[in-house]
Amino acid sequence: MELNDLVPRRGEWLRGTGSDSDIVMSSRIRLARNLAQFPFLNRADDSVRSEIERTLRRHLNELSLGGPRSYLDVSHLERLDRQFLVERQLISRELSESHGSRGVCFTEGENISLMVNEEDHLRIQVLHSGFDLDSCWQQINRIDDLLEERVTYAFSEELGYLTACPTNVGTGIRVSVLLHLPALVMTGEVKKVFQALQKINLAVRGLYGEGTQAMGDFYQISNQITLGKSEEKLIRSLKDVIPNIILYERKVRSALVKDNRAELHDKISRAYGLLRSAQSISSQETMDLLSSVRMGVNLGFIDDLSIPTVNELFIHTQPAHLQKLRKTTLDSADRNAARAGYLRHRLSPPAQGDKN
Amino acid sequence: MELNDLVPRRGEWLRGTGSDSDIVMSSRIRLARNLAQFPFLNRADDSVRSEIERTLRRHLNELSLGGPRSYLDVSHLERLDRQFLVERQLISRELSESHGSRGVCFTEGENISLMVNEEDHLRIQVLHSGFDLDSCWQQINRIDDLLEERVTYAFSEELGYLTACPTNVGTGIRVSVLLHLPALVMTGEVKKVFQALQKINLAVRGLYGEGTQAMGDFYQISNQITLGKSEEKLIRSLKDVIPNIILYERKVRSALVKDNRAELHDKISRAYGLLRSAQSISSQETMDLLSSVRMGVNLGFIDDLSIPTVNELFIHTQPAHLQKLRKTTLDSADRNAARAGYLRHRLSPPAQGDKN
Repeated sequence: MELNDLVPRRGEWLRGTGSDSDIVMSSRIRLARNLAQFPFLNRADDSVRSEIERTLRRHLNELSLGGPRSYLDVSHLERLDRQFLVERQLISRELSESHGSRGVCFTEGENISLMVNEEDHLRIQVLHSGFDLDSCWQQINRIDDLLEERVTYAFSEELGYLTACPTNVGTGIRVSVLLHLPALVMTGEVKKVFQALQKINLAVRGLYGEGTQAMGDFYQISNQITLGKSEEKLIRSLKDVIPNIILYERKVRSALVKDNRAELHDKISRAYGLLRSAQSISSQETMDLLSSVRMGVNLGFIDDLSIPTVNELFIHTQPAHLQKLRKTTLDSADRNAARAGYLRHRLSPPAQGDKN
Repeated sequence: MELNDLVPRRGEWLRGTGSDSDIVMSSRIRLARNLAQFPFLNRADDSVRSEIERTLRRHLNELSLGGPRSYLDVSHLERLDRQFLVERQLISRELSESHGSRGVCFTEGENISLMVNEEDHLRIQVLHSGFDLDSCWQQINRIDDLLEERVTYAFSEELGYLTACPTNVGTGIRVSVLLHLPALVMTGEVKKVFQALQKINLAVRGLYGEGTQAMGDFYQISNQITLGKSEEKLIRSLKDVIPNIILYERKVRSALVKDNRAELHDKISRAYGLLRSAQSISSQETMDLLSSVRMGVNLGFIDDLSIPTVNELFIHTQPAHLQKLRKTTLDSADRNAARAGYLRHRLSPPAQGDKN
């Protein structure tokens, strides 16, 4: 599969299926691993980096991942293609922006991705639509075992898996859930949620991970601690707390529908109207309006649009996706016009783009 | 014709025809007249007011106005009906809100209206769509002559027509032109126009006359002086200056289209989108958005809507019209919802309401 084949596809986290998918976009687990025979990347020169990349590429291409996979040499990709993979959550911003030999292996369904020479030699990621950390863990644990049959990980009996950054030492695991919380944001209640999460050592980040701003009312909740607790316990802490946030968001949505139905309907309807009519629109405004529309579909205020289509629009209107769809590079003003044109086309009544 | 028969009708100033009707909504002349045999209204008791009303009603009903006319006893109209007539420009806010015997006589086409016991015993008004002060003058002069054959006006050889307020003494004429100036407002250039008009003693008012706020980028330009100059000279001063304002607005529109086409298109298109999708909308926001849409139709950015329809929407979305159309009284929140519903219905694609 070529990178360009991905463009029209939907990918795992846009499927909009799975448990609680009105609020939980996706569940994700990643493991940080390093090969014992090589130094960490911050002490590896170019030739060592290349050797790591060659070694891991060979293993990844032979690994049983339950279906076809692609391996992309990220160091030879254009900036636009790298940005495209970031927007699709197949690689991190760090892998996109670093230098030297590096790559990514991912499955056709886009729910498994393995990054080579990101911060660690290997980052394994498994993602599922909806609230489904168990499937993620089952799958990633199996991949990790299969790899361990082939390579020797840097591992200490005392500390666990050794990683480039001390914050990942131990299990090397990050468990995260991407939530859509428009009602909690609208009412300001989201602050309380974040304060409570902080107290139990869970981190809150924006759509594209560490350091990114929250857009479209999307928030990633993940563990901060990787040492001293088993993977199962860390997953359990997320599995315990997320249902409470889901319940809270649902409660606030119900209260809004009950007490502010007219205002809420107006806000949602205007958002939909603007997305269908703007001639120029920024990525940020698009995300914010789509967020209202997504809640509107879930609450039944909008009935000619499906959640997978809305999910897809979130991604297709990102800068790199837009340029890949248009098959050309565009400056910011042209992107805003192209984005508005794409949205009008997809959302024009009768909803032409809404085949799903 | 009953008052309720007016509701679905368009009336003269909404026709959207006539010279320069992209910018000039309507031209209007009114004459202030008093009957010599009665005191001015500020010195008339209830019985005198009633006698004036009876006298003028009889004459007006017999007057040749070139077609059928109606006479309404304003003192017996509900507040909502009076407000409705104000919104249609058939009576003034003053006539609506004052007390005692008073009435209005108007023709079926709504271009002639004669108010009895407003500030003066009689106010004659002739209105034409577009820039056409000559037709107004020709028609109002004839009506004035016909009336003078029947009654004796309060008149002084030295001063001219005598009126309740000294500002109207002399000719008793007010010549006004209602302009739609969205581009001048958008660019802030409108201030320069107003300063220039002030210097030549022309007044600038909002849509509903003296003391009303400018809404929807509508401005009424009219003479302030009525004494010492002939009617023809006063009309001439408007006829000289208005074409310059029209030219200025057109020039600024062209510059916007040339230099800010994308932004302008976006603004117009979003306004149209909001009008088609809002679930609750105030009168003020409606006017502002319709103003953008009206310019959009004139500039060819919107091609599925006609100017008469847009003109009509300006009036039909006013509070009293909305309630007459819904055949019920509504509080402010319900009006905002009803207004949004009406706009969605009239503007929903394919433009169902756009038969003209």
